[in-house]
Amino acid sequence: MTYKENAKNYMENYGLGIGDKIKVNKEDISYTGILLDRPEDADDGYLVIKLSSGYNIGVAIENTTAELIEKGEKPKIGFGETEIPHDDSKQNISIVSTGGTVSSVIDYRTGAVHPAFTASDLVKANPELLDYANYNVKALYNILSEDMKPEYWVKAAEEIANDISDGADGVVIAHGTDTMHYTSAALSFMLKTPVPIIITGAQRSSDRPSSDANINLIDSVIAAKSDLAEVCVCMHGSLNDEYTYLHKGTKVRKMHTSRRDTFRSINAQPIAKIQNRKVSINPEYNYTKRGANELELNTSIEEKVGFIKSFPGISKDYIEYHIDKGYKGLVIEGTGLGHVPNDLIDSFKRAQDENIPVIMTSQCLYGRVNMNVYSTGRNILDVGVISGIDMTPETTYVKLCWALGQSDDYAEVKEIMQTNVAGEFGEKSTIKDFLN
Amino acid sequence: MTYKENAKNYMENYGLGIGDKIKVNKEDISYTGILLDRPEDADDGYLVIKLSSGYNIGVAIENTTAELIEKGEKPKIGFGETEIPHDDSKQNISIVSTGGTVSSVIDYRTGAVHPAFTASDLVKANPELLDYANYNVKALYNILSEDMKPEYWVKAAEEIANDISDGADGVVIAHGTDTMHYTSAALSFMLKTPVPIIITGAQRSSDRPSSDANINLIDSVIAAKSDLAEVCVCMHGSLNDEYTYLHKGTKVRKMHTSRRDTFRSINAQPIAKIQNRKVSINPEYNYTKRGANELELNTSIEEKVGFIKSFPGISKDYIEYHIDKGYKGLVIEGTGLGHVPNDLIDSFKRAQDENIPVIMTSQCLYGRVNMNVYSTGRNILDVGVISGIDMTPETTYVKLCWALGQSDDYAEVKEIMQTNVAGEFGEKSTIKDFLN
Repeated sequence: MTYKENAKNYMENYGLGIGDKIKVNKEDISYTGILLDRPEDADDGYLVIKLSSGYNIGVAIENTTAELIEKGEKPKIGFGETEIPHDDSKQNISIVSTGGTVSSVIDYRTGAVHPAFTASDLVKANPELLDYANYNVKALYNILSEDMKPEYWVKAAEEIANDISDGADGVVIAHGTDTMHYTSAALSFMLKTPVPIIITGAQRSSDRPSSDANINLIDSVIAAKSDLAEVCVCMHGSLNDEYTYLHKGTKVRKMHTSRRDTFRSINAQPIAKIQNRKVSINPEYNYTKRGANELELNTSIEEKVGFIKSFPGISKDYIEYHIDKGYKGLVIEGTGLGHVPNDLIDSFKRAQDENIPVIMTSQCLYGRVNMNVYSTGRNILDVGVISGIDMTPETTYVKLCWALGQSDDYAEVKEIMQTNVAGEFGEKSTIKDFLN
Repeated sequence: MTYKENAKNYMENYGLGIGDKIKVNKEDISYTGILLDRPEDADDGYLVIKLSSGYNIGVAIENTTAELIEKGEKPKIGFGETEIPHDDSKQNISIVSTGGTVSSVIDYRTGAVHPAFTASDLVKANPELLDYANYNVKALYNILSEDMKPEYWVKAAEEIANDISDGADGVVIAHGTDTMHYTSAALSFMLKTPVPIIITGAQRSSDRPSSDANINLIDSVIAAKSDLAEVCVCMHGSLNDEYTYLHKGTKVRKMHTSRRDTFRSINAQPIAKIQNRKVSINPEYNYTKRGANELELNTSIEEKVGFIKSFPGISKDYIEYHIDKGYKGLVIEGTGLGHVPNDLIDSFKRAQDENIPVIMTSQCLYGRVNMNVYSTGRNILDVGVISGIDMTPETTYVKLCWALGQSDDYAEVKEIMQTNVAGEFGEKSTIKDFLN
């Protein structure tokens, strides 16, 4: 047990043990739930309680009284132990934690959130996980996802490939939400997988001291046990805990700063819905079945790729800067069907002359790039700019990093960008898949 | 009349005149509609026909036969004339054309679209407009909107202010869709208006030789005659021609590359719906009534503003470059609640030290920036970065250009950015206004 001093005394005073159902009474509010153990480095003076909703909250014990509602069973995972129980009848799921809110601890004193949980803490904080699988858990990083870098994608892909080689029946990656879709795209390009690879996280709104990691994690494990051998993002499908969606790793994007259902398939439908622990795959989606692919790992990437948003005041100097600085490729977030001010086109010509692929995407996010409609688009095509088709700008950026890792030949990179490597673009118009 | 040679001979041959209802028969398709006059500089060999849907199409006459269905009335506008009729009982609407698809002509030979119509051509191509108002039409620019620059916003605002001073009861701006929302935001900050200022355009999908300008223009005129004295965008509300929406000029964004209903209110509801030529204002929206404001024009802007999207491989050199190059302000499109890699924060500190305001927005687009939740956000706040609240990144960029035009003092710019100048941010959480 990691409770110390004040909290420990308080527990002894009221006869509370970890795993017990307890009630903590404040002046005008009371909390009832299962008393959990807490991370090693958390502040003293708080108890962590799992509410019946599955949310874990921290309750400051100052000026409270407590009561024991029901003595708990001995916790399955053995709080305070590092070993996770093993059951030969269950599948083996590897959980790789990279940090992020899903594996963070809130500092209940300041309200700020720090990445702090270890991967095994994830299981301890969500003991229902033990009903579904055996776990091999490891903490690869402990960072918030805004600090993910392309080199970390490589290490994560290698770790996942190792786990699959070692016999994992599925892999769950706990990840911060900010850049989860960049990482899911990177893993999609880097790995051909015989088993599901599911990326999940938690979206926590600032006004509630709770984590929505519970259902996302459990449903990710359900997905990781399924027949869907693809890289997917598993996150809330609505504002409540009713169901989650699996989104294709290359077709998904974080669309809201704080909602739990922030992740959305762009120019595509979700691959599957998970409700009541059951995966329902979209019947229109032709998925890759477990075991259909051999494991392949290809992590060669080029990190010197620029990512530029076009806007009315943009200067061609900004494109020139990237060329001068030795960037190997550029992704442009253009306007509309894939446009930039005509002023910039000379600089795209220079990029072409210097063997630097430039890929055009749209800041509209939805719909397809089509540079054949307007005179500007045709001028842009004339200087060798390559269409991002209906890929998100973020997936296009990740794909260009990967494509430039495969080849430094302009024509070959163009060929890769126009080949559907990991379902990253739709073959047909996606006009119906709008704001869904 | 501007038909010449082949087309003129063809019309004489079949006894067709402008304004007549005609039918053109091809081998396997026929078109019935009103024969329109055509722009001066268009190619020979095509007739322009207005279908009953309101769409104008170009029909190549080669290998066709034609028949006269019904002789037309003398066209109201006098085709071939430059004078537009005036009716003292109607309101006076100023139409300012800046170019874009709404005022473009398709080259029916190549399928490409060029900005070519003059503003009076707009009325000629949409004669129903004459039922609703008198028009003062002028072509301010003739460009596609990707070539709009901040200095053009200034000229447009000045022109609009002149028209209002000269007695216009409302102003309609015809504009390309790519950057329409940047311009609508700019006009919102630059103008306090006693009359409606309505920006409209057309979204043309590459696969159909038709323009959806008709209903957008007519509904814009209806809006310009209304009681809503604000800067609004008027565009299709659905895939068909059933209704249009009025969106607040600071809260709107192009969200699809090709759909007609591409413009969407972000973190807000549309202000009004226009159906069957009737404006229904959202009852929850507290609008500014006609005449409530005196006309005020404030076009001071700073054009040297950078607009940077954050991504996993971004280098702090991006920020340093903008500081070195003398940029006066930066807008960051961060991830999630408003984050960037911690590597960049030192450069934000340098920006602060050099009196360069940095404004944080989110590439999620939906939801509010909140840098108080995570440690990264707090670090970013500590170096003076200013929240973009729930403004779109594009509106934030435009607002910072304008704010830096009002003051070069950091504290004053911060004060302006946090003041709701033109309804650009919501006072409350907008969690419900998601993907609508």
